[in-house]
Amino acid sequence: MIRFFNGRTLEPGGVTENEVWVDGSAISYVGPAKADMPAFERQVDLQGDLIMPGFKDAHTHSGMTFLRSAADDLPLHQWLEKQVFPAEAKLTPESTGAFVKVAFLEYLANGITACFDMYFFQDQFVQVAKDWGFRAVMCESLTFGDDPQRVYDRYEKYNNMGPFVGYRLGFHAEYTNGLETFKAVSEAAHHFKAPVWCHNSETAKEVRECVQRHGVSPTKLFDELGLYDYGGGGYHCIYMTDEDMDIFARRGLTAVLNACSNGKLASGTFHLKEAMEKGVNLAVGTDGPASNNALDMFREMYLINIMAKLREENAAAGDPGLILDAAVSGGARAMGLTDCDAIAPGKQADMVRIDMHRPNMRPVNNVVKNLVYSGDPSNVRMTMIAGKVLYEDGQFFVGEDAEDICRAAEKYTKQILG
Amino acid sequence: MIRFFNGRTLEPGGVTENEVWVDGSAISYVGPAKADMPAFERQVDLQGDLIMPGFKDAHTHSGMTFLRSAADDLPLHQWLEKQVFPAEAKLTPESTGAFVKVAFLEYLANGITACFDMYFFQDQFVQVAKDWGFRAVMCESLTFGDDPQRVYDRYEKYNNMGPFVGYRLGFHAEYTNGLETFKAVSEAAHHFKAPVWCHNSETAKEVRECVQRHGVSPTKLFDELGLYDYGGGGYHCIYMTDEDMDIFARRGLTAVLNACSNGKLASGTFHLKEAMEKGVNLAVGTDGPASNNALDMFREMYLINIMAKLREENAAAGDPGLILDAAVSGGARAMGLTDCDAIAPGKQADMVRIDMHRPNMRPVNNVVKNLVYSGDPSNVRMTMIAGKVLYEDGQFFVGEDAEDICRAAEKYTKQILG
Repeated sequence: MIRFFNGRTLEPGGVTENEVWVDGSAISYVGPAKADMPAFERQVDLQGDLIMPGFKDAHTHSGMTFLRSAADDLPLHQWLEKQVFPAEAKLTPESTGAFVKVAFLEYLANGITACFDMYFFQDQFVQVAKDWGFRAVMCESLTFGDDPQRVYDRYEKYNNMGPFVGYRLGFHAEYTNGLETFKAVSEAAHHFKAPVWCHNSETAKEVRECVQRHGVSPTKLFDELGLYDYGGGGYHCIYMTDEDMDIFARRGLTAVLNACSNGKLASGTFHLKEAMEKGVNLAVGTDGPASNNALDMFREMYLINIMAKLREENAAAGDPGLILDAAVSGGARAMGLTDCDAIAPGKQADMVRIDMHRPNMRPVNNVVKNLVYSGDPSNVRMTMIAGKVLYEDGQFFVGEDAEDICRAAEKYTKQILG
Repeated sequence: MIRFFNGRTLEPGGVTENEVWVDGSAISYVGPAKADMPAFERQVDLQGDLIMPGFKDAHTHSGMTFLRSAADDLPLHQWLEKQVFPAEAKLTPESTGAFVKVAFLEYLANGITACFDMYFFQDQFVQVAKDWGFRAVMCESLTFGDDPQRVYDRYEKYNNMGPFVGYRLGFHAEYTNGLETFKAVSEAAHHFKAPVWCHNSETAKEVRECVQRHGVSPTKLFDELGLYDYGGGGYHCIYMTDEDMDIFARRGLTAVLNACSNGKLASGTFHLKEAMEKGVNLAVGTDGPASNNALDMFREMYLINIMAKLREENAAAGDPGLILDAAVSGGARAMGLTDCDAIAPGKQADMVRIDMHRPNMRPVNNVVKNLVYSGDPSNVRMTMIAGKVLYEDGQFFVGEDAEDICRAAEKYTKQILG
């Protein structure tokens, strides 16, 4: 057992001074010190630091680290067609596995304990997750030319790989698929009684062209086709109509916010006010490192609130507590990781130690606002998944040397980008 | 002498692999290793890390750390009148000095080597700067009720305090002063042949009311009164007209951008495209920790570019190289620290070591874009001012214990906020 004491704990009801004990992969106790203490393998004196649930990066493309700082400052379609697609055509299973590892290092350094990923070469991705003990849920990324029947095998295969791997039904987006695929995925959703995910309403163009093609918005189209009969949600969700928001609220779907990527690609701003009014479930994602370019949930939380204030021209807009909850618990619920969403007895020990001593956290007037408005990755002292410390004080404990991982990724990057 | 080798250097012409040698307070050599090497007191093997000029926080209110996370999410006027002003009325020289120290710790941890500050109790502020060897330039903050004649004594006093302290003529803003003050400051500017600074066009309301009062915009008013005859500039500068931009360009004035504060207070977005087209000098500031809430120039640089893209609805908008230059060199020029603006022989050794090994910097496809789009304070390994290391690997070297400083600030905060 590991004991964390003399600090703060971000619990579902707020910030407490409770201790947190971890036994195996789970949290065994959250409360004050006891008179009769068990034997601990390790005792961590937090000295005021905070234990909080790990961030859940609810939409990302981990394998895209190789394009970081190599494909910037271009309009979306030029970016995709001139930089992203030609480079991705050169990806191999080996290089993608190397690039995924760089992303996983960054997740760990930034307090992220799980990611909801959509990319190529899923076997390599899964292998890293299993080897390291990092929670990785994949979303199926069907596009034109893919056989939607593949989802049946994959669903069975990847959802039976143990606690660190998951697979969700989905497809890339409306504009990259036809009706037959949507119908096939809907059948699969009914077969498995499973949620469905995709990029949804990321740009005005996407929604406009969907209306031209199908007479309705992407959200309404998917809903009418039964794709949301067992839940799910969408990534980005910027250009949603009121009716789309109502569908999300009624179905209990989750909108995954990607403020940094939507800014960098000039896509637009999520309608947070309307989503809050309708009670839409929210989660937070970084999107891939080619369009962000960091995998940093502090920056996402900050920007979501800032953009809400600017969009509404009201400094009172946004809600740091709600967005923090979306970034840790909302993401867990979206990914099906309902045992990783909170610091509470019986929950998986997916947690982060936040350094409250660094000057950006002082004075400690309000822990939640500190996290959202002045926190940054330098405040992450430790990242634990399933009771195992994978990152602490700048060191990674993943069974491989971090610098070797980065150098291998750079070798493959050079082969692809020249 | 200290030798930094085996890394990268951000020089005025771009990123090189040159060594950097520091002798006393200055940079003595930038170039390849020599056959005949002098004796060094310390040799730092950078292992690929980057030496770059320190960030210059060109607009801040350091003493406001006590309000961090204590005054958020309120519209600007409520924020000022209900939270900021009543709390500030309780400030003392002692408490303000303690709050300034917390800000200075944060500057150092985040790679900031100089700040352009506007706040109360300047003697306490100056004392910390001198004691620590941190470069602090004050801007005079005249408001209603202040005697503008005080600027003469202060100008002489603070500009003769050695290399770490500076004082610039200025006033809080148009809306907090009358014509007599502007005329008096203009006289002082002509007396000293000195630049003038103030908050300028931060909100639409400010500009609208200035036009009602004076018939012209703040920028035009100040220009007509001769306040800019010896240069200077403005903080925020969001609601500038084309004519205002022309005045800034023609006079060589500097617009200090504060994207995070302008977002958090829902003030608006700087017109970067127009400023770039007209060639307006740019610098970057955090504004105070009550309206930001971090003192983090990485986040500022990111947000400036993101906001430009969103405002122009064009992912190609913004310019990471230009904004990085504004954050390091533009700020130095604005503050009169022209010997602290670059890594070059003879320049002051105000520099930062950036950790290029952390995964957010990998692969290293483009150092400048890495700094602006994926860099964060966790990448700051060392901050040096005038050849002296004041921060390295999480430790502060300022002659006082960092935790003691933060605790003292928290004690004073409790006295003020209850």
